[in-house]
Amino acid sequence: MNYRLLIQYDGTDFRGWQIQSGQRTVQGELTRVLSLLEGAQVNVHGSGRTDTGVHAEGQVASVKLQREFTPEKLRNAVNGNLDGDVRILLAEVAPDEFHARFSAISKTYRYQVVLGPVMSPFRRRYAAQEARPLDFEAVRRASQLFVGEHDWTAFSAADSESGSRVRQIESVDVTKSRDEAARCDLVSFTITANGFLRYMVRSIVGTLLAVGRHEIDQPTVSQAIQGGERNLAGSTAPARGLTLLRVRYD
Amino acid sequence: MNYRLLIQYDGTDFRGWQIQSGQRTVQGELTRVLSLLEGAQVNVHGSGRTDTGVHAEGQVASVKLQREFTPEKLRNAVNGNLDGDVRILLAEVAPDEFHARFSAISKTYRYQVVLGPVMSPFRRRYAAQEARPLDFEAVRRASQLFVGEHDWTAFSAADSESGSRVRQIESVDVTKSRDEAARCDLVSFTITANGFLRYMVRSIVGTLLAVGRHEIDQPTVSQAIQGGERNLAGSTAPARGLTLLRVRYD
Repeated sequence: MNYRLLIQYDGTDFRGWQIQSGQRTVQGELTRVLSLLEGAQVNVHGSGRTDTGVHAEGQVASVKLQREFTPEKLRNAVNGNLDGDVRILLAEVAPDEFHARFSAISKTYRYQVVLGPVMSPFRRRYAAQEARPLDFEAVRRASQLFVGEHDWTAFSAADSESGSRVRQIESVDVTKSRDEAARCDLVSFTITANGFLRYMVRSIVGTLLAVGRHEIDQPTVSQAIQGGERNLAGSTAPARGLTLLRVRYD
Repeated sequence: MNYRLLIQYDGTDFRGWQIQSGQRTVQGELTRVLSLLEGAQVNVHGSGRTDTGVHAEGQVASVKLQREFTPEKLRNAVNGNLDGDVRILLAEVAPDEFHARFSAISKTYRYQVVLGPVMSPFRRRYAAQEARPLDFEAVRRASQLFVGEHDWTAFSAADSESGSRVRQIESVDVTKSRDEAARCDLVSFTITANGFLRYMVRSIVGTLLAVGRHEIDQPTVSQAIQGGERNLAGSTAPARGLTLLRVRYD
């Protein structure tokens, strides 16, 4: 039986998604518990990796098991053996051909930034901080340059995939909201694409924040996107602000 | 100079507000840092204590300092010496007679409960969980019994204040909202009163949840409120769901 799992995790205390011996990772924890329940080693496939410190509100994984479980029993049995910072929200029986990575059509990430001199204790795990003044309208205008299909080499880790680095960004939404209790503004970047390279969201956000500080101008951003020159892009924003919101399938 | 401080803390890793030797407490941390800046021992007065594991989005404290600081410098200097789970959001110069406890007119607490079989990793520090079915309308109706002025002995710790246990509850609001990402409902209790006894909110919420599970009926709740019989009230809900939202002053 092939199962599809909808998963949340607070990435703060994980060394990312991907299983690595001797490290606490999300895939490692799920593999450990599912193998225990199956009584044999199983392979857990995620929609994609997330890096150390990155969170997920809607990661998806698939796993094939010989033992039969009702989806609800499977979910509860796995959750009962996990620490509280990772949870299966929903388990479903999936068609045999479903594969969390290969079947994915698009993914949406959110990046959050607290503006101002004080980081709220309630946001510190889930947002970066920008203490300097930010030209929000400049950020919003520049964000639209990223919509489209490009080779994203300039906005990814040097060691990113060996294959094609062309990805299509469907939408970039940048919003500002007020956290009255914490006396701060919160800027949210929501980016949907048919795939992401390593560090891609954090590099785009780092570049947009540099635009907001007037350290990089719009033509330079265009040039980095069109020309793929890494040194024109801004720095990579910290992991803790990043959350995988959802993965879309047919 | 008398300063008024607006403070947030994530109570998870604190042994509550009140200073205790050998324990990490919020008042203890603030006293340590402010005494360091003053170069002498200072007294930090909070609007009231919060217990181990209870959070604050808007705790208020007052402190008198001989050394002069601009409010902003004071805030930044204190924050620079605190861990990330406690922050001064705002420091203001206050009139000499301002005292965070004695000047307080009312306080508002919020208690959050996740309904359903799975606790979201993003809510686990800030909400309790109710996995059993909950009759929300019964909870809401019974919640209004708590509005008014009463002796709250039945809904407080046995070792609560030695003085009067009469407090006036201004309002109890119970709302249910959907957390679509976490696939759960969230029930929020927001209670405002001119003062609270120890465990009072958690005891009221524990009783209302018992009403929602049909373990206690409305007449029994009325009797506990009117008659002050502790054994008629429900159990005390866990600390992690409780947050001091704000303190009102003239």
